[in-house]
Amino acid sequence: VAHEIVIFGASGYSGLELLRWLARHPEVRVVGASSDRWTGQRVRDRAPTAPSELSFTTHDGALAEARSGRLAFLATPAETSLELVPKLVAKGVRVIDLSGAFRLERDDYPKWYGFEHTAPELLAEACYGLPEIDRSADLTRARLVANPGCYATASILAVAPLLAADLLTDAPLALDGKSGTTGAGRGVKEHLLYSEVAETIAAYRLGRHQHTPEIERALAKIAGRKVTVSLTAHLVPMRRGLLVSGYATPKHGVTAEAVATAVQKFYRDARFVRVKTERAAEPGPVAYTNQAEVQAMLDERAGLVLAFGALDNLVKGAAGQAIQNMNRMLGMPPELGLE
Amino acid sequence: VAHEIVIFGASGYSGLELLRWLARHPEVRVVGASSDRWTGQRVRDRAPTAPSELSFTTHDGALAEARSGRLAFLATPAETSLELVPKLVAKGVRVIDLSGAFRLERDDYPKWYGFEHTAPELLAEACYGLPEIDRSADLTRARLVANPGCYATASILAVAPLLAADLLTDAPLALDGKSGTTGAGRGVKEHLLYSEVAETIAAYRLGRHQHTPEIERALAKIAGRKVTVSLTAHLVPMRRGLLVSGYATPKHGVTAEAVATAVQKFYRDARFVRVKTERAAEPGPVAYTNQAEVQAMLDERAGLVLAFGALDNLVKGAAGQAIQNMNRMLGMPPELGLE
Amino acid sequence: VAHEIVIFGASGYSGLELLRWLARHPEVRVVGASSDRWTGQRVRDRAPTAPSELSFTTHDGALAEARSGRLAFLATPAETSLELVPKLVAKGVRVIDLSGAFRLERDDYPKWYGFEHTAPELLAEACYGLPEIDRSADLTRARLVANPGCYATASILAVAPLLAADLLTDAPLALDGKSGTTGAGRGVKEHLLYSEVAETIAAYRLGRHQHTPEIERALAKIAGRKVTVSLTAHLVPMRRGLLVSGYATPKHGVTAEAVATAVQKFYRDARFVRVKTERAAEPGPVAYTNQAEVQAMLDERAGLVLAFGALDNLVKGAAGQAIQNMNRMLGMPPELGLE
Amino acid sequence: VAHEIVIFGASGYSGLELLRWLARHPEVRVVGASSDRWTGQRVRDRAPTAPSELSFTTHDGALAEARSGRLAFLATPAETSLELVPKLVAKGVRVIDLSGAFRLERDDYPKWYGFEHTAPELLAEACYGLPEIDRSADLTRARLVANPGCYATASILAVAPLLAADLLTDAPLALDGKSGTTGAGRGVKEHLLYSEVAETIAAYRLGRHQHTPEIERALAKIAGRKVTVSLTAHLVPMRRGLLVSGYATPKHGVTAEAVATAVQKFYRDARFVRVKTERAAEPGPVAYTNQAEVQAMLDERAGLVLAFGALDNLVKGAAGQAIQNMNRMLGMPPELGLE
Repeated sequence: VAHEIVIFGASGYSGLELLRWLARHPEVRVVGASSDRWTGQRVRDRAPTAPSELSFTTHDGALAEARSGRLAFLATPAETSLELVPKLVAKGVRVIDLSGAFRLERDDYPKWYGFEHTAPELLAEACYGLPEIDRSADLTRARLVANPGCYATASILAVAPLLAADLLTDAPLALDGKSGTTGAGRGVKEHLLYSEVAETIAAYRLGRHQHTPEIERALAKIAGRKVTVSLTAHLVPMRRGLLVSGYATPKHGVTAEAVATAVQKFYRDARFVRVKTERAAEPGPVAYTNQAEVQAMLDERAGLVLAFGALDNLVKGAAGQAIQNMNRMLGMPPELGLE
Repeated sequence: VAHEIVIFGASGYSGLELLRWLARHPEVRVVGASSDRWTGQRVRDRAPTAPSELSFTTHDGALAEARSGRLAFLATPAETSLELVPKLVAKGVRVIDLSGAFRLERDDYPKWYGFEHTAPELLAEACYGLPEIDRSADLTRARLVANPGCYATASILAVAPLLAADLLTDAPLALDGKSGTTGAGRGVKEHLLYSEVAETIAAYRLGRHQHTPEIERALAKIAGRKVTVSLTAHLVPMRRGLLVSGYATPKHGVTAEAVATAVQKFYRDARFVRVKTERAAEPGPVAYTNQAEVQAMLDERAGLVLAFGALDNLVKGAAGQAIQNMNRMLGMPPELGLE
Repeated sequence: VAHEIVIFGASGYSGLELLRWLARHPEVRVVGASSDRWTGQRVRDRAPTAPSELSFTTHDGALAEARSGRLAFLATPAETSLELVPKLVAKGVRVIDLSGAFRLERDDYPKWYGFEHTAPELLAEACYGLPEIDRSADLTRARLVANPGCYATASILAVAPLLAADLLTDAPLALDGKSGTTGAGRGVKEHLLYSEVAETIAAYRLGRHQHTPEIERALAKIAGRKVTVSLTAHLVPMRRGLLVSGYATPKHGVTAEAVATAVQKFYRDARFVRVKTERAAEPGPVAYTNQAEVQAMLDERAGLVLAFGALDNLVKGAAGQAIQNMNRMLGMPPELGLE
Repeated sequence: VAHEIVIFGASGYSGLELLRWLARHPEVRVVGASSDRWTGQRVRDRAPTAPSELSFTTHDGALAEARSGRLAFLATPAETSLELVPKLVAKGVRVIDLSGAFRLERDDYPKWYGFEHTAPELLAEACYGLPEIDRSADLTRARLVANPGCYATASILAVAPLLAADLLTDAPLALDGKSGTTGAGRGVKEHLLYSEVAETIAAYRLGRHQHTPEIERALAKIAGRKVTVSLTAHLVPMRRGLLVSGYATPKHGVTAEAVATAVQKFYRDARFVRVKTERAAEPGPVAYTNQAEVQAMLDERAGLVLAFGALDNLVKGAAGQAIQNMNRMLGMPPELGLE
């Protein structure tokens, strides 16, 4: 029998992407989907491969139906996740949260998210679900998985091998991120209009993007020391896709070969990461897939390491990675339903 | 009477942009236009505001017509410029070259452009024409002006104020450039097809973009010391527009105010540079104009200075700046025909 | 001394375009600009070439300042124009209205615009300002000019020559319009988000687009009989530009030559219309200009005439044409400030 | 055991799409892939889910390997298909041809494709594979299936129900097609450059698009009479997706209900066609799927029927439909591997 799944926030771009992928997954069945926007409407009108009997409910409606043994995806804003998660966990529902509500240290929340964290025990318990950098982790008993952010996934995948191989000094890392518009969600805001986005590219949230501490935390674990990051996000005129270009300072004596080898080795068995050597890592070729592309090279003349991570922000950067985590939680092969 | 102008390479994107702007200039008249592609065709069929009697000629045809006292714009590949410039100068024609053929030191050419420079005296004589960083220069007698590259213009405008105010260490600068497709020219190449460019973003020429030594040379002049730069160019799904995001290491004790002040002061009287403070520098608002936008801020937490330069790659990054230089050479107000 | 101009609704895409073009016009000066959105802000922050002393006011503020002898552009919704125009005319201000409020017969308003017209005398007095089809009209004493809609301008320019030469039967004309997103205005609506517009194309307002009766009215005048039109508008993933492809039934015996000749002849002296023969009429080459491109051909095999009209929806489809009308009203050369 | 499949022309956009979809199909295995462009390269470098042992061969190489019992997809130009098909059929290979080489009457080829057809018997034998309009056809013994063109599929799906229900006069149908750039293939041509395609929309092949006779032939079969069509194709700035907007003349007395009912009824059991009523048919929602969207309505006032067909030109317009046909030929469920 199939595992029963509920999606909270199913009408955003990540929520719809979850509906599409889960419809193809052989071992699960979506039994609930909540939405602020389309409450009462048939899910199939928006996600044609979704189960025909499903209608969008309110979050409260979905919560009332939640039962022990089910698994919930939360594609909701961080504040909403913070409210819903404790209630779901208390009911015995296992949770994969796609927001930032359970990704940081408690002290980081006021500064980066603008609120005090009200569920510190759950925060301490939450597993950060980036499978490729934490392969030994056993999630089969995890109650709460924090699914990484899209910029964070691309950044960490790009830089982790260099830190794991101890090739970098502790100088701050400059991360230049470029994202398609679905990464900004479906909020109806003037700066997201086609007329405003097309034919330009602009940086936003300079020095204060909320994925910064998430990246620093994950990279510090790999490096075994503090890692400082400055993330600059840019909005690019494309729908899907994200590229992070990282600029890092190599330790004295690091060679081009050392850089290349570090990346190849780190991802030797990674099913969802392709290491690019001759052609650049870019999001286009992995659009609509759960693959990431990474690339790293030494600019020997200038003395900088360039590291790139590319993915589909809605798949490997959100829904796909969440399903990877679901597979791990349910003890299924990590690639099930993702190829 | 109007100054007589000839354009070599008038059928590329920069050449056509020159035709458009020069048609509006009150003091000049285009009397010749050469093109490999459209030889024999009426210019007006491609550039509707061009003089009606003009037809595209071969380069040789335009060269044969060249007379002392005229001014030539060369929107040709570097190799072609290298051939044409000595002949034009010998005939008494003053030249503004939009290629990279006269922008570097002689020793840089084999490595960055793949050829030995065959006109070293003219190279030594050429003036690098970036008006905003070299305002005292008198071009009224210059025979040859090297018009800066688009990435170079945006990069130098972004970083120059920080070096002029001595705010940066000598750590390598990471320059992350993002360009629209017209910056790559009209060459018919697979990677420039709409189907290949749309819905992705990719880095190219990693560590070996030919604007790198041009930027280093110009910045070194400002800093009074060697400046090392790593430029990573990215192709963005937009037609026009270019943004460079620079990541630099501040000297100890540099404050956010110092950064802001340096930029404001540097561009106080610059007619074609707008300093952005609240909103990000981006190419959209300056599309189809000769304006650049710059912005700089200190990421105090991380310890990096972020510096941005944005422009229209065909105007301030090519044809517009070339006309600025023409105005300087002809002793006319710098903004004539550019507003 | 320059003519004094006021713009109502100066913060929409058409309003900003007016600001840009009027800043270059040698004989006028913008002395007022109203905006719901940016009241109190400096105009120059949004339109860098606008007069430096100008700030956005409320509509009421601009109305209070209105004085006899000035000329007002209204880039406001039809309902707002309907309110403002009588007050302005009463004050002796001459008006060019870019909305649909003064373009139709009184009886058309309830059906196509959803309101009863409250100023029927002014409606009867208003001149429809499409210069190319009504060249003999003298606007030097006109108090109120209704500036045509963007779909209407392209449609009428495409089909008028065929009707003027009496080449079409009275079968209904199918007009298939394709517009960039700025044509839909700056309203913050979900269907105008980049994520929704990119990578698709969709028809809207099937059978009930409000430019339909405007087109029928103008074409009927040319044909000297009733003309029936079905306009289907499509939203295209581009910022600017509009193309209308018209499908019409030729009278028996009409030849390809007759079609070609009709168009050439109709636009023989039209400064702002280019007749295309070998290449298709398209908006790209006329972007950011007040030019239109038209093309017509007979599909002899099938027995249909194809007629195309292309323009920049913000220039020839709005602000540029409005300035053409202003020049006519003020007795100035029609192309002044538009080249 | 899986059916063995060979793809000729596997490096074009349709060929790559075939590789992607066939990799997911449970009952087939790709054993050969030819390409002019990438001969000798590993297929997996371009299509990451393709079998790992596969390399691109020449067409001749793939032909030499062809064995009875295999099935070949030809995503090659019409001229190439015309050469390959007789050889493949002679070897006992069953063929699905995605080109136009086997879609028309023999007499149509000189005019619409510019060549004399050299395999008239095979042409007469070929089945036109548009499953939704020819559901009773049994392809289990077919040796050669002509896979419909993308414009043809969308056009026929849009108009077929109206003809089947006898709602239209015999006036010529105007079909206004809008296609993304992948529909034009990967040929490296100037007019397909990003810089040329973006920010414009243009008609091409006016009155002589080669899908015209294909549409007329298929519609005539449904109508039981001659049907005349004028197809105008437009290139739209998007990668994938195609929309055809059809304008047809209703018979006297046809009602809005009759139109709506005809479409609903025609597609009652069609798994891959969605009938839209409230929202417009558009390609975006069916991108990357084998679904089509259709919509029809009566513009009662004007007296025209509007009929729309939308699809992904590479899936339902090419590779997906080809796999539908493969399933029919192999006696498998039509939707296998397509959901």
